[in-house]
Amino acid sequence: MSGRITVVGIGPGSPEQTTPQASAAVAAATDLFGYGPYLDRLTLGSHQTRHASDNREELSRAGAALTAAAQGRHVAVVSGGDAGVFAMAAAVCEAIENGPAEWRALELEVVPGVTAMLAVAARIGAPLGHDFCAISLSDNLKPWDVIENRLRAAARAGFVIALYNPVSRARPWQLDRGFDILREVLPGETVVVFGRAAGRPDERIATVLLADAAAGMADMATCVIIGSPETRIVERDGLPPIVYSPRFAGRPAR
Amino acid sequence: MSGRITVVGIGPGSPEQTTPQASAAVAAATDLFGYGPYLDRLTLGSHQTRHASDNREELSRAGAALTAAAQGRHVAVVSGGDAGVFAMAAAVCEAIENGPAEWRALELEVVPGVTAMLAVAARIGAPLGHDFCAISLSDNLKPWDVIENRLRAAARAGFVIALYNPVSRARPWQLDRGFDILREVLPGETVVVFGRAAGRPDERIATVLLADAAAGMADMATCVIIGSPETRIVERDGLPPIVYSPRFAGRPAR
Repeated sequence: MSGRITVVGIGPGSPEQTTPQASAAVAAATDLFGYGPYLDRLTLGSHQTRHASDNREELSRAGAALTAAAQGRHVAVVSGGDAGVFAMAAAVCEAIENGPAEWRALELEVVPGVTAMLAVAARIGAPLGHDFCAISLSDNLKPWDVIENRLRAAARAGFVIALYNPVSRARPWQLDRGFDILREVLPGETVVVFGRAAGRPDERIATVLLADAAAGMADMATCVIIGSPETRIVERDGLPPIVYSPRFAGRPAR
Repeated sequence: MSGRITVVGIGPGSPEQTTPQASAAVAAATDLFGYGPYLDRLTLGSHQTRHASDNREELSRAGAALTAAAQGRHVAVVSGGDAGVFAMAAAVCEAIENGPAEWRALELEVVPGVTAMLAVAARIGAPLGHDFCAISLSDNLKPWDVIENRLRAAARAGFVIALYNPVSRARPWQLDRGFDILREVLPGETVVVFGRAAGRPDERIATVLLADAAAGMADMATCVIIGSPETRIVERDGLPPIVYSPRFAGRPAR
């Protein structure tokens, strides 16, 4: 019996935003590995085994999943959002590169999904409407000065910036430091969107100006989108405002 | 009767990668606006009216769609991939901001989708596994020197770069010029992925080194992903290679 491993992005939260391909990959698996809260979102059959693990254990989870696949199981490794954006696909690839030869012989499939910044952007208009970047604010796996350098470079070049992993209990000060760096480059009137749990019942979307942005507005499940100087707020009577970045935007920041 | 407008991202190509939310939005529309080839991918009922238009007519298409919505129609504006990434959501928001007051009173919904870079990345491994950016190479709406500046800034800061709209008949030289700029900053051994029509029957995914990358390898439907200096190729016997960007990557380019 030949095993296989599929890394599946199940989308940002609502089952309505999970692709049929991702649902089929979940249904076809004998063994499902993932961070507990992501596995909790799935309805599994009695023939399916659930292997929940804690956050920040990506590499050991990838190794356990590959071991099961090499034993002939049909394994799905489940990520929220997209599997390839600050998620499990890179950890599985890394484990394959550095693991036993038999892991390289496994069939590997990655199933993409709607990543958080796209779901948050959709709820407010089109803040990612021109060139943009995605930065993980976690310094667990890269030095903090690399993150600072990327924030400065992206803001100076006029990118819209989506921040993943903005805060956690172990990383309380990084987001405020990030806002301070961005305030050195971008006008205080730059639009900032805090998008939490987009598409889920506990969704919360808030728009503030960069001058007023603070880490307390975010938690682990928040994606923070910092506009470029051209990003616009369109106010509407009795309706939520629209935030968008014009397609023609191009002026680099000061 | 009160009209409404929904901007829908139907995903990169395969119906298996269209979310249930997007399919439902298409089914609920009385009038569908979009670039012809995207509308061709939909199965419409006899009660639904198809308004196909040419590429590069985003703003007039948005205006026509908003006019129909203001007349009480249930309008869907269809984009390939995600609605908010170099697609129709920003054009609709721009039209609302600059249009008649009644357009601001319309219910606007944006339905996200799997954007091309995510689908291409999934087919090859996890090349977007660390910080990355998305740049449209089209200089129809922004000056070319802004694009050059962003390419340099992104490469120097160590971002993986996804290029949308890399070439067209009207823009034949920009991609080769872009590669030249990147070769000034990045090692020739940097990995480049050309991903065309991911998930469709005519899909084509190719991996080359930056030293050998050339515009002839891309067409309008291609998304080009340029790795960072840390992006890795994992060769496998009898299986396609895996390309991934390690989660711990961080070293900025020279």
